[in-house]
Amino acid sequence: MSESAPAIHALPQPYLLFLGDAAEPAYAKTAQGLRDWAGDLCVGEWSCGATISTGLPQLSPAEARGRGARALVIGVAHPGGAIPPEWIGSLIDALEAGLDIISGMHVRLAELAPLREAALRLGRRLIDVRTPPRGLPIANGRRRPGKRLLTVGTDCALGKKYTALALARGLVSRGVAADFRATGQTGILIAGSGVPIDAVVADFVAGAAEWLSPAASAEHWDVIEGQGSLFHPAYAGVSLGLLHGSQPDVFVVCHEPGRTQALGFAGFTLPAIEEVIELTMRLGRRTNPAIRCAGVSLNTARLDAEAADTLLAREGRRLGLPVADPMRGGAAFDRLLDGILHTGTAREVA
Amino acid sequence: MSESAPAIHALPQPYLLFLGDAAEPAYAKTAQGLRDWAGDLCVGEWSCGATISTGLPQLSPAEARGRGARALVIGVAHPGGAIPPEWIGSLIDALEAGLDIISGMHVRLAELAPLREAALRLGRRLIDVRTPPRGLPIANGRRRPGKRLLTVGTDCALGKKYTALALARGLVSRGVAADFRATGQTGILIAGSGVPIDAVVADFVAGAAEWLSPAASAEHWDVIEGQGSLFHPAYAGVSLGLLHGSQPDVFVVCHEPGRTQALGFAGFTLPAIEEVIELTMRLGRRTNPAIRCAGVSLNTARLDAEAADTLLAREGRRLGLPVADPMRGGAAFDRLLDGILHTGTAREVA
Repeated sequence: MSESAPAIHALPQPYLLFLGDAAEPAYAKTAQGLRDWAGDLCVGEWSCGATISTGLPQLSPAEARGRGARALVIGVAHPGGAIPPEWIGSLIDALEAGLDIISGMHVRLAELAPLREAALRLGRRLIDVRTPPRGLPIANGRRRPGKRLLTVGTDCALGKKYTALALARGLVSRGVAADFRATGQTGILIAGSGVPIDAVVADFVAGAAEWLSPAASAEHWDVIEGQGSLFHPAYAGVSLGLLHGSQPDVFVVCHEPGRTQALGFAGFTLPAIEEVIELTMRLGRRTNPAIRCAGVSLNTARLDAEAADTLLAREGRRLGLPVADPMRGGAAFDRLLDGILHTGTAREVA
Repeated sequence: MSESAPAIHALPQPYLLFLGDAAEPAYAKTAQGLRDWAGDLCVGEWSCGATISTGLPQLSPAEARGRGARALVIGVAHPGGAIPPEWIGSLIDALEAGLDIISGMHVRLAELAPLREAALRLGRRLIDVRTPPRGLPIANGRRRPGKRLLTVGTDCALGKKYTALALARGLVSRGVAADFRATGQTGILIAGSGVPIDAVVADFVAGAAEWLSPAASAEHWDVIEGQGSLFHPAYAGVSLGLLHGSQPDVFVVCHEPGRTQALGFAGFTLPAIEEVIELTMRLGRRTNPAIRCAGVSLNTARLDAEAADTLLAREGRRLGLPVADPMRGGAAFDRLLDGILHTGTAREVA
């Protein structure tokens, strides 16, 4: 890659969410995430026979374009990661209505000849958010101004993105300048920019993380979406490169209570939260000697409110740290924000 | 990448080494490495005005082809990583003589239109060893039969490749079945196959390491070329993915005495050898609980024989482990091989 770093480029917004022919809400996580976290950027939804809905207005591409939409986002996954032939006509309709198409799927949009040809003919863009920007730098390891927070985890897929989103929103609600920095495809769609860190060539992962959270004013926070886990048998290297390049001042450990094995990797017992704190401190000090743990985010979606509150309080006492479920908010979440902001009073654990 | 893993494919051999117009031996490290470690695979050298030599016979591409050569290897680097216009005519001559061209340079051969067109016209291959195989898998973390050794380091570029080559050769000389497994471009040229691990997409690094050292007979050793360092501010993630995927039974720590800072990363003090041992044990246990350190390889190229012997002995006593310079061989190197093979008697350090 070249020596000159790319500019952080923004996705065309607002969006029309495309639901394909989905019949199962579990396949529509991208659309749901966009509705929940970037609702003001979504003018509506559209499908070709879907039986599910995000609850947003149902609009044709032309109607959405008339309301200012600039891109159709594929908001559903399809088993196997492919774009089925039944979607193609609808996607071309969107291009004809003047919308670009944005996809976070594994298959690249331009690999589908009918889409490629229609986009070329109509002068529209096919944007794959799994494709990293060109020209990412090698990390230099030098400290840069501004504050940074990284969410880390005991495993994949247990709330690192939503925790980062909620913390960024919480900081802004306190009047703190903060940006969510996305490292995965759904996060990138929500933020409108970012780097799909696991798709970056290995040598450039730490450099990509440096580029994603550049020098900023001293009191500004970049809240960086973590990926994988330092304990993951397939993805730990990605997590370490992201940790080193992010140089976080503060990290928050994310965990799903009750999960004991790495998802899809039977036999790999998850580490204790204390182990994650200790190893993150140890490895993170290499690029930021002042790194500290501000608290823990537990994904209590499977518990009722009372059981969740009990668990959060018990874990907080046990660990001596703020422990919250950011999706539940409340006093526990306030204490987690305090832990992030009040550097001087937060208890250091190592 | 696809679900089906690629086969380990071999480079066309033997080689004719191309020295370009090089006037400075420091730019010919690839050619020298091939002469030293794969001399039986090199029929000769050729240049377009070079004033340096590997000492191999000087042959035209046609003469080399007559002696069985199947590929021209670009054995020199050019400042900036480019292929200069002055080389193009010579490279086309090689294609016309029936040789494929192999390059480990940053620029891809097929990006040069005259080369691309000549190769197409002549039915010859342009092979970039920095391009990873397609279809690498995600790591599964499962143990597989066979023994594995990984060289790890305090930093980049201090002897991990040569240590692995010397250890593989040493094992074979004792009648042990062993293969050198290459993870960088020069190593791949020497081995005739391998994976340029730092060019692999981040998510696939551990999987590439699993693929590179596949299931083998119980007493077979894969001796895997390490990359980077767990303490490196830019490349530690690559090193961790390689460690997890390699699942080494044994590792050897490589260091250059006197080097105190990471090369090109001023301010990053190198870790002590003991720190490398401890962190490698700790992180490596995640995929191989029986991992152990067999000893240390010191690059004493800058010392005279007496100073080197003194240093190796002193470090051996201090660490309580075999410490050798594999390029010097001798009794120290024999003890290092003993340390690798005699699992039961080697001292465990953690």
